[in-house]
Amino acid sequence: MPPEVTSAIPGSASSSTTATVPPEAMAGAPVRPILRTAPETPLVDVMGGSARWEIPVHEHGFVALVDAMPRLVPEGKTADFAIVQAARVSYGDGTKHVNEDRGLVRYLLRHRHTTPLEMVEFKFHISMPIFIARQWIRHRTANVNEYSARYSIVPDRFYRPSVESVRSQSKLNRQGSDGAIEVGTAEQFLELLKDAESHYQKYLSLTEQGVARELARAALPVSLYTQWYWKCDLHNIFHFLSLRMDSHAQLEIQDFARAMYALIKPIVPVSCEAFEDYRLNAMQLTSLEIEAVRSGKPLATENKREHAEWEEKRVRLGLA
Amino acid sequence: MPPEVTSAIPGSASSSTTATVPPEAMAGAPVRPILRTAPETPLVDVMGGSARWEIPVHEHGFVALVDAMPRLVPEGKTADFAIVQAARVSYGDGTKHVNEDRGLVRYLLRHRHTTPLEMVEFKFHISMPIFIARQWIRHRTANVNEYSARYSIVPDRFYRPSVESVRSQSKLNRQGSDGAIEVGTAEQFLELLKDAESHYQKYLSLTEQGVARELARAALPVSLYTQWYWKCDLHNIFHFLSLRMDSHAQLEIQDFARAMYALIKPIVPVSCEAFEDYRLNAMQLTSLEIEAVRSGKPLATENKREHAEWEEKRVRLGLA
Amino acid sequence: MPPEVTSAIPGSASSSTTATVPPEAMAGAPVRPILRTAPETPLVDVMGGSARWEIPVHEHGFVALVDAMPRLVPEGKTADFAIVQAARVSYGDGTKHVNEDRGLVRYLLRHRHTTPLEMVEFKFHISMPIFIARQWIRHRTANVNEYSARYSIVPDRFYRPSVESVRSQSKLNRQGSDGAIEVGTAEQFLELLKDAESHYQKYLSLTEQGVARELARAALPVSLYTQWYWKCDLHNIFHFLSLRMDSHAQLEIQDFARAMYALIKPIVPVSCEAFEDYRLNAMQLTSLEIEAVRSGKPLATENKREHAEWEEKRVRLGLA
Amino acid sequence: MPPEVTSAIPGSASSSTTATVPPEAMAGAPVRPILRTAPETPLVDVMGGSARWEIPVHEHGFVALVDAMPRLVPEGKTADFAIVQAARVSYGDGTKHVNEDRGLVRYLLRHRHTTPLEMVEFKFHISMPIFIARQWIRHRTANVNEYSARYSIVPDRFYRPSVESVRSQSKLNRQGSDGAIEVGTAEQFLELLKDAESHYQKYLSLTEQGVARELARAALPVSLYTQWYWKCDLHNIFHFLSLRMDSHAQLEIQDFARAMYALIKPIVPVSCEAFEDYRLNAMQLTSLEIEAVRSGKPLATENKREHAEWEEKRVRLGLA
Repeated sequence: MPPEVTSAIPGSASSSTTATVPPEAMAGAPVRPILRTAPETPLVDVMGGSARWEIPVHEHGFVALVDAMPRLVPEGKTADFAIVQAARVSYGDGTKHVNEDRGLVRYLLRHRHTTPLEMVEFKFHISMPIFIARQWIRHRTANVNEYSARYSIVPDRFYRPSVESVRSQSKLNRQGSDGAIEVGTAEQFLELLKDAESHYQKYLSLTEQGVARELARAALPVSLYTQWYWKCDLHNIFHFLSLRMDSHAQLEIQDFARAMYALIKPIVPVSCEAFEDYRLNAMQLTSLEIEAVRSGKPLATENKREHAEWEEKRVRLGLA
Repeated sequence: MPPEVTSAIPGSASSSTTATVPPEAMAGAPVRPILRTAPETPLVDVMGGSARWEIPVHEHGFVALVDAMPRLVPEGKTADFAIVQAARVSYGDGTKHVNEDRGLVRYLLRHRHTTPLEMVEFKFHISMPIFIARQWIRHRTANVNEYSARYSIVPDRFYRPSVESVRSQSKLNRQGSDGAIEVGTAEQFLELLKDAESHYQKYLSLTEQGVARELARAALPVSLYTQWYWKCDLHNIFHFLSLRMDSHAQLEIQDFARAMYALIKPIVPVSCEAFEDYRLNAMQLTSLEIEAVRSGKPLATENKREHAEWEEKRVRLGLA
Repeated sequence: MPPEVTSAIPGSASSSTTATVPPEAMAGAPVRPILRTAPETPLVDVMGGSARWEIPVHEHGFVALVDAMPRLVPEGKTADFAIVQAARVSYGDGTKHVNEDRGLVRYLLRHRHTTPLEMVEFKFHISMPIFIARQWIRHRTANVNEYSARYSIVPDRFYRPSVESVRSQSKLNRQGSDGAIEVGTAEQFLELLKDAESHYQKYLSLTEQGVARELARAALPVSLYTQWYWKCDLHNIFHFLSLRMDSHAQLEIQDFARAMYALIKPIVPVSCEAFEDYRLNAMQLTSLEIEAVRSGKPLATENKREHAEWEEKRVRLGLA
Repeated sequence: MPPEVTSAIPGSASSSTTATVPPEAMAGAPVRPILRTAPETPLVDVMGGSARWEIPVHEHGFVALVDAMPRLVPEGKTADFAIVQAARVSYGDGTKHVNEDRGLVRYLLRHRHTTPLEMVEFKFHISMPIFIARQWIRHRTANVNEYSARYSIVPDRFYRPSVESVRSQSKLNRQGSDGAIEVGTAEQFLELLKDAESHYQKYLSLTEQGVARELARAALPVSLYTQWYWKCDLHNIFHFLSLRMDSHAQLEIQDFARAMYALIKPIVPVSCEAFEDYRLNAMQLTSLEIEAVRSGKPLATENKREHAEWEEKRVRLGLA
């Protein structure tokens, strides 16, 4: 951390306590005029003048970045700048060279001082199948506006994997999947998806016959695409990504998460590097595992799963 | 509000400031033993000794109350008691007769002092179709644990309305529905739902052939039932109910909301009465409508929808 | 609402369902390159190129707008544009003339469809006394980074009202204040504040003697200024403003709220106009009051406070 | 995890899909009567019949547990039971022996499946100095009702440490403190606190002379005690505790956090054991540290702080 600096209140013109309170400063006085300050350095658009950055996902899906806060940053800076700016309100001013900004961001990530990360916000436009949307929406801190199947006819778009992407049930993990299933079964499954999709024409004609859209859609499968605007701060995006880029997440949502990460990384590169070093590729050792390293003895538990988890970590640490 | 009372800090045995700090009170001292206080009045279970209160909804759905906080209340009180208890921390002690408790709760509701309502919590077990679950989950302040279709085979339960409940698209409200559609069309729609449900056997056999559950379910329609535990505080439940018992909500979720309301009303009757008087059956007048009443002139806008809304309110007020 | 439009998924190049899935679209495939789209209309900065818009409040306080999302909007639009953009994802496309944007925003505000308002975000830098910060922080949906008195020496800034702003305790409202108290008492109070401030020098010298900052600050009064970055979406800002611009809020925080409102109004003028018409200057009629209008009879309650509240509303409605 | 079980929907009496929908099951039908289910096992109060469990903290503070959800649990179970109950909705039924409940809770904690922990809720009554309350309130997921200094006269209670508890500023950590400072300086600081407290009499008499309470309190120091009801779910309590029982938190709030932990541990002992093993006493290894273990080389960074942090961990792991 930088050396101690008694931080003056930026933006406050008045110096120290004054003897007389000017009348316009009284409680209940009318609102004073806005003072506008020009930037010290020219501002540049972190999206390089684009309206939208989009990455297609699967056949019909996409993740598109449509806005960022900060959108304009001082020339030569990235949007990581806003994290440093907020942290410096807490910590007081220090030197401001690029290097030290990086050190500060990394310090924050390493020490779970996550509130400055909340000062960066991203807005996405996303199209994904309903079964993925249902996992996604569990992240409650985001702002969401979804396409309404009560209000409008839903478009004719469904998720259908390639034959090679039809995965078999994992033998080890009850909520996971393993590699591709044999082609015959995969084709049967794709046939089933096609059958489910085929109800779309009936859905369409029933709404034309006057059935309420909010009811008619009940016959459509969860492979149907929906779309939404999804706006979230960087702290909570990192939380989302750490869960959804994880190998235990459903492969389809991993694809969306990786696309999202690819979109924000050029905009907050310093934070993303720290996220990888201290979160994504980090490892948690339990107190039992710490003791096992310390004593050189086996894990002090009879839980088989915990032993297997420790074995995996030992391999990664080169201790096995 | 009751007369001013300098509220002593309840539970604090020490009187006024003392000269010497006992050593155990030093910062960093070990945690002291727990002091247990018996209730002044015998405590009774607000659920009357039951483990579960359930109301069936439609053919396969239900809302079940499985817990409440407070669960135990002083004999003669309802769970509204916890709201009064919390409000009195802010306002200081006053007289405590039942009547005044009611007055205080009503005052809070009327004046949007909603934080004491957050001191009451309800936990529900709910079974509902996916298309309803997707509306429900948009209420982000609740705690939720949902059945996982990645982890387990989903049960064979689908929403299918009676012929009389198949509604036509509203002519006036793009996201609403009107009365029953003619029988022929309704039967066609029920046929479509049956077709969509019929994929269940294929889903089952494909999972038996080894297709990952997380993929196999993609073929099932959003009429499929899911279930979850849903825990929420009373302030946010009232918010949920005011939106979902409203006539603009989809009829199916109205049914669930009304069942939920029927479950909590015996437990917080005073709050529910105030909720009806000051929220559910209240009316918002816009500044334009206030001016229209005041001046006796028509609404000062050319917006047709706003005129229609004002006309509706005038009828309800007996001014039309 | 605009006529029904089957909204295509914007940004999705592919048309209808295709027979073969391209290999890059498979689940688990590498992330594809970013597609960048240029804006249709030139983008302009809603803050007009400024880095900061500041309004001083009282002697040492201020509210400064430091960023907005959207920051860049299509020429000829205001930031209200982002609300319309998000709402249109739900409602499908319609005509897009400015007039209709206004109608849509007003419709959303009038009907409590508040999620599109969450798509607009503002970031402020604020300096305020601790006793105000403590009221402010109760709004939990914002992101906050506050100056740390553990980490840095606090600056020598305290709230001291003018003699005319020292208010007497309200006779009617236990938590409110009335007009100015007589000068003698006011001067005694200002003397007291000065005494409390005078501990600052002792605080400073004790930290120089090595007392931990986190302890030393315990002697400073709640009139001390603190500062923070405060970032919040427009829906929650409106909620904050509706409570804190209200005449029941403490006068000092009203001043901050009005400054905040003055800063955002030029940026989201359409939303602010609707907020004033449908929220700030609106009136809630309880079911008892609706019945009183309807029947022409007195309010059906013995609660004196409720009668007084109804009397106030009747005056405003010109019915008294 | 237990073997696969196709979980029936508990509470749903109907079996499979039926041909005819009973009229009462129609959308829009009246709410049906409540079905009450008796518990299978007698229920017991997790607070053992007490109304309040209190632990004094420092001279005037306390943390008191005033309610828990679940409050009533099946005989022989602890409140951990509610976590298992919620998790089983996701995972389907399995064997239910106590041992396996423990295994399931530990699995959830180890794998960050934290939503079932949100199904347990605790309500506390807390009295603490304002400077501690200001740190505490930053945890935004709790429900809070605080004593109002606008509404009532504040009691005459201030935090004053013992001479031995006056700590010096940490040399290493800008926001921390070290051991006791020399007695002379400590006594000067206690004198300063006494001076700050002495304004209380003036505060009292000015309010008697009619100065509004909301203004008069501005002269009181942040060492003043306030109190609140604070209600939070177990997941967020664990998050609070992991930050506030940490040695980097201010010693005073550590004392409150440890008292809170002592109050909940007898009620959710299984979760607390897992919390200690997998969170509180766990260790995070960064990707750089993993590589250092693996390669046996020094940490691949020039950041001194990171080296120091790794050195500390190596000592704890017995690798130094």
